[in-house]
Amino acid sequence: MADLTLAYAQQLDAADPLANFRARIQNDDPQMVYMDGNSLGRLPVQSAEIAKDIVSRQWGQNLIRSWGEGWFDAPLRIGDKIAKLVGASDGEVAVSDSTTVNLYKLAMSALWLKASRKKILTDDLNFPSDLYMLQGANYFMGNHHQLVIAKSKDGIQIDTQQIIDSIDEDTALVTLSHVVFKSGYMYDAKAITQAAHQKGAMVLWDLSHAVGSVKVALNEWDADFAVGCTYKYLNGGPGSPAFLYVRKDLHDKALSPIWGWFGDNTPFNFDLRYNPAPNIRRFLVGTPPVISMQTMETGVDLMVEVGIEALRTKSEKLSEYLIWLFDQRLAPLGFTLGTPRNVAIRGSHVSFKHPDGYRINRSLIEDMNVIPDFREPDNLRLGLTPLYTSFQDVWECVDRIVRVISGKLHQKFPVDRLTVT
Amino acid sequence: MADLTLAYAQQLDAADPLANFRARIQNDDPQMVYMDGNSLGRLPVQSAEIAKDIVSRQWGQNLIRSWGEGWFDAPLRIGDKIAKLVGASDGEVAVSDSTTVNLYKLAMSALWLKASRKKILTDDLNFPSDLYMLQGANYFMGNHHQLVIAKSKDGIQIDTQQIIDSIDEDTALVTLSHVVFKSGYMYDAKAITQAAHQKGAMVLWDLSHAVGSVKVALNEWDADFAVGCTYKYLNGGPGSPAFLYVRKDLHDKALSPIWGWFGDNTPFNFDLRYNPAPNIRRFLVGTPPVISMQTMETGVDLMVEVGIEALRTKSEKLSEYLIWLFDQRLAPLGFTLGTPRNVAIRGSHVSFKHPDGYRINRSLIEDMNVIPDFREPDNLRLGLTPLYTSFQDVWECVDRIVRVISGKLHQKFPVDRLTVT
Repeated sequence: MADLTLAYAQQLDAADPLANFRARIQNDDPQMVYMDGNSLGRLPVQSAEIAKDIVSRQWGQNLIRSWGEGWFDAPLRIGDKIAKLVGASDGEVAVSDSTTVNLYKLAMSALWLKASRKKILTDDLNFPSDLYMLQGANYFMGNHHQLVIAKSKDGIQIDTQQIIDSIDEDTALVTLSHVVFKSGYMYDAKAITQAAHQKGAMVLWDLSHAVGSVKVALNEWDADFAVGCTYKYLNGGPGSPAFLYVRKDLHDKALSPIWGWFGDNTPFNFDLRYNPAPNIRRFLVGTPPVISMQTMETGVDLMVEVGIEALRTKSEKLSEYLIWLFDQRLAPLGFTLGTPRNVAIRGSHVSFKHPDGYRINRSLIEDMNVIPDFREPDNLRLGLTPLYTSFQDVWECVDRIVRVISGKLHQKFPVDRLTVT
Repeated sequence: MADLTLAYAQQLDAADPLANFRARIQNDDPQMVYMDGNSLGRLPVQSAEIAKDIVSRQWGQNLIRSWGEGWFDAPLRIGDKIAKLVGASDGEVAVSDSTTVNLYKLAMSALWLKASRKKILTDDLNFPSDLYMLQGANYFMGNHHQLVIAKSKDGIQIDTQQIIDSIDEDTALVTLSHVVFKSGYMYDAKAITQAAHQKGAMVLWDLSHAVGSVKVALNEWDADFAVGCTYKYLNGGPGSPAFLYVRKDLHDKALSPIWGWFGDNTPFNFDLRYNPAPNIRRFLVGTPPVISMQTMETGVDLMVEVGIEALRTKSEKLSEYLIWLFDQRLAPLGFTLGTPRNVAIRGSHVSFKHPDGYRINRSLIEDMNVIPDFREPDNLRLGLTPLYTSFQDVWECVDRIVRVISGKLHQKFPVDRLTVT
């Protein structure tokens, strides 16, 4: 039976089969409560060792020879590991560029394959960069497409059926975040993908807030395209390169609009005419940032070792517990829940809305040694990273929020929010 | 008076004002002769220290707070440093993405600004990835443009006048490598830029083999756009992010085709509509690979410390000495020079052509502890990095080539070249 004591949180930790993985993450300040793993995942201890090897030995000593000893193969080698986390097959995932550049490549591929259709469907819960990419692509193609942005009524979720009803025979592409960045709402991706295919449209999923935290089944969904971020739940390091997925039967049909030597079939022949690789490599462009990429691999290895089933199971328990504490302790203080209550449609982060959210966020950081995240206009966003977030972290986080509110500590921050990033 | 002895090379080193900078580079094998700094620059000692700090402290301890303490500003901060190396002004250079992605962004910007014109001019000495990018951009725009590829007669150089004569009133964009990747030929960039402007065309320079090795004067040339690589002469680390330059008066006219949140004016407002930053930031896209980017900064700092005048002076001496040794010792063995003899039109690498070039290259690597580079079909390419290449390195390199040839050591490598990358 749940209760409000710290001892109860500690009981949950004692029963947590993933508790030992916390030691695999660098943790120099045990008092800090880090609730921002969905923005920047923490440093795996082994990643620091690997980074040193990459710099001092692979680069410093082995120099150019390292290209033949792991660097050149890394985009597909790491891609195959990420494939295990997103329900894809070997050869369907590659590491490349940033999430937005990958979105651009795959959205343009889809629009080119569906050139006779004129609608692009997305929603207003999508990460703004995804919407910017679509606006730019459309602008440079002469605004020939209609960008349909499905509207959420409450800013938290949009029914899957509302999306499905918006797809018609003129829809070229449906592109959404599987788990949305602000509220943590999770779409029924399989139902949307199947409905899109019934109308002849293609689907591109942004998995940035999903990979490593929820069950993603790209093959089972029959998804056409997907992209995702590796520096959130995969703990790949700040800005570590993103990944892209293209379903295997599209490899000889789809083309990136950005042709570069890493996508050529024989890059070291230096032919003047582009000959795209017959596989996922055709979506690569230029030389990848090796230190960031190879350091990231260690974070991915760790996630593969744990397995997505265990991660999702713990994630659900963490968010259920956090929302239970919210109901008991934070709702009475003027917070409202900015996240779905139904765990089946929720990712691994939780938003609490409060009119004074920004200042509460600053006070948690400055006075309380809690690192949450804030998203305009009033979302205190708390990331629950099943690999290393403990139930005690969750308890401490809620307790320190209560102390901020009761102590009026956030009055210390009457600043213009625009002066602080 | 030059002579063929090692002692003479050592005299040149003793008189080299940059000789002390060699100690700033990690060098675990003093017997190794590294002649591939134009493919992958070596590791500055300080970069290894910085990389450790980025991973263990900035990421591991400081976590998300590091975004406000250096990470977010890095693309423009480092860009301002690179500006000093390429004759640009503060605010005209940003670090972003890979060279080819940046080429795509700026070529598309130019074609959009010159939408009524239908010709793109480049040459067959350009790096293939640059040509692939142009082919892809044109393909996705419906092949409306004519891609004019100026042909070199000897595979080594193309007269500036031949390029100028190919520019006409229908030319939208001229894009070339300032120093070409195979022969090291260097264009008169100012003359070409001015001629293009007289015809109303825009110019995009690829500085990958130029930056840090020759005098680049983007403002003096009045160049519109440029891109470049940071992992060659800038010693930024494998695949470290590239840079882009846009002349200041174009900042409010030119647009990238890839709109992303790092290019938005207020990325943390999370507005649904893209509002491009009014400066060079509008050419950024997504979250940059921080570990690779910030490690690279140290290499750039080192180049700024030395200064481009001193670097170019030494580079000229190195290549003059290498070609003098070539004439004396290698020409009699069947090598021909694949690089201009005139130092005024030569970058900082030198190519020797030999029918057996590939096997000589392999033998140098496997048996002789020399690391050169090989470029199809017969170019042994030797990079002279003024920061750390010594005159003794040059002497040793030539001497070991002679020993390979005279000892027939390269007969050890009768392999199919396609099995080795």
